[in-house]
Amino acid sequence: MSQRRVRLALVGFGSVGQALLRLLQAKDAELAALGFRWVITAVLTGSRGLWLDPAGLPAADLLGRVAAGAGWPRPEAASGADAVRALLDAQAADVLIETTPLDPVSGRPALDYLRLALGAGLSVVTANKGPIAHGYTELRELAASTGAKLAFESTVMDGAPVFSLVARTMPATVVGGVRGVLNSTSNYVLDQVSSGIAAADAVRQAQLNGVAEADPSLDLDGWDAATKLSVLSHVLLGVRIRPAEIPRDPWPPPAGAGPRLRQLGTVTRHGPGSVRASVRWAELRPDDPLAAVRGMSTAITLVTDTLGELTITIKDPTTEQTAYGVLADLLAVTAVLAR
Amino acid sequence: MSQRRVRLALVGFGSVGQALLRLLQAKDAELAALGFRWVITAVLTGSRGLWLDPAGLPAADLLGRVAAGAGWPRPEAASGADAVRALLDAQAADVLIETTPLDPVSGRPALDYLRLALGAGLSVVTANKGPIAHGYTELRELAASTGAKLAFESTVMDGAPVFSLVARTMPATVVGGVRGVLNSTSNYVLDQVSSGIAAADAVRQAQLNGVAEADPSLDLDGWDAATKLSVLSHVLLGVRIRPAEIPRDPWPPPAGAGPRLRQLGTVTRHGPGSVRASVRWAELRPDDPLAAVRGMSTAITLVTDTLGELTITIKDPTTEQTAYGVLADLLAVTAVLAR
Repeated sequence: MSQRRVRLALVGFGSVGQALLRLLQAKDAELAALGFRWVITAVLTGSRGLWLDPAGLPAADLLGRVAAGAGWPRPEAASGADAVRALLDAQAADVLIETTPLDPVSGRPALDYLRLALGAGLSVVTANKGPIAHGYTELRELAASTGAKLAFESTVMDGAPVFSLVARTMPATVVGGVRGVLNSTSNYVLDQVSSGIAAADAVRQAQLNGVAEADPSLDLDGWDAATKLSVLSHVLLGVRIRPAEIPRDPWPPPAGAGPRLRQLGTVTRHGPGSVRASVRWAELRPDDPLAAVRGMSTAITLVTDTLGELTITIKDPTTEQTAYGVLADLLAVTAVLAR
Repeated sequence: MSQRRVRLALVGFGSVGQALLRLLQAKDAELAALGFRWVITAVLTGSRGLWLDPAGLPAADLLGRVAAGAGWPRPEAASGADAVRALLDAQAADVLIETTPLDPVSGRPALDYLRLALGAGLSVVTANKGPIAHGYTELRELAASTGAKLAFESTVMDGAPVFSLVARTMPATVVGGVRGVLNSTSNYVLDQVSSGIAAADAVRQAQLNGVAEADPSLDLDGWDAATKLSVLSHVLLGVRIRPAEIPRDPWPPPAGAGPRLRQLGTVTRHGPGSVRASVRWAELRPDDPLAAVRGMSTAITLVTDTLGELTITIKDPTTEQTAYGVLADLLAVTAVLAR
């Protein structure tokens, strides 16, 4: 059992990054028993800049400063890609953990950060679907060329095992398609609509409850689901399709929606190197496991040649589950496996 | 990539064993690309006895003889445990694949076969829940002492990833409980009952369709589900509970059952080293992922400290899926992993 601490650079330290740090603290003894010891050596945020110390940053102080709205005590001058270059130059990290905000249209600047890290041979765990949707093939090849590892379980279904499920429990299996209720906010708002609330009122209510953003179009117009379908297509079906290439039904859904009307994302293999994908309002059959997905829950059905249709559902995930997906990835890229 | 063939001894060659052999043939090129080459060196059934040839048995001939109702050309005299000893003495196998019929009360004679094989240092893959329900702790310790491996994914949910899901994708996770719709036949018959057919008529219809056995009590009275709960408790919660210790609601279910009445198996941690388990008729809520489980489908919800409630559902599994679970185990015990 190695006693050397794995040095973590946190790029992005919003709700997911903070939840990850709390989880690392809570699971510290359990992780040590698995042979995994950790230390944060760098943290970079858009508003606070970079705090870097190869000797390790005080974890409690990181959380305390953010809770208090305070800045870093000794921020470096660099920001954005320059800050990522600075932390790579310092060679103070073993894994870069990227949890910056999503840009579904370009995947940037996260994509730039991942290119820099993987190009320098630094392994990356990301919870950000943008760079995977836009750059998976390139990033995978870059990682292979430098020997770095790349993991991204939390990009889809908030940390529930999807990519690791296929890679580690379903050998010699061909995934022919994926169907999913992929976006929590749409699902929640549809529940309100099906209970008789007008679509516009349901959105306002979701905004008041903190479930929907001030601009909820990313969720309700299917951009979030399309970006996740893009990731699923790249990784599980081996076919690149950009989020903007996936047709989406915009909000609102058709009037008179029943409780089984869901925002359904679908991607299906359609000949070699080709897929068909869409995000549609669909009334599901009562015996469809996706039909029972309510509230903030999400679910995916994998259509396979060996196990037929396998569905995985996670109930009302929060940033705690997203953070766990990052932790599971972190253990995988540092070769600490369960058992 | 090793070119040496993994030598397989098939103990039991009914529907699952035959489906496994067809799957090995169908996936031969894909398996070879993963570095896995195979040969059958022994096959043992209750009615045909043991056919053993260290040079390898002709796979097509095995399937042909069974389809034609013919015996083995050169059966050994030994049967049962003596036959297992004979094949161990011949040192002609690298993995024993056990798919003999279930005895839920004792787990025998399968349990005896597994003791013999693991004790001799031979790795075992079993699709038989009896020996795991009755002997998991002992078998695991025996395997650890001889360096053999033991895998049993197909004992619950017909080959869908359950044990490998927890072991390989959910590190540092504590499973606090499991709820499941575990028995396909009960589920199918309940569908008939909920559509207005009388319980006794529904059972007769299921027997005519080949879904229920001549004596369907193993399924309908909850023995099958209780045996699976016993396996889940041993393996995922680390607490031994025998199938006979689990209270079961007998057939028929209460009159007036709705479409969401299911045979629900539950096991929950209840203090250190202790669990509570039962198999009950339960009317599920519409937002319970288990409520959408129809026909021959099965599903399990894992209650965890890291991912909350995670549900896995397999649609209408057959022996093909059970056979795939055995194949996935076989790749795991011979250290051929995906990717």
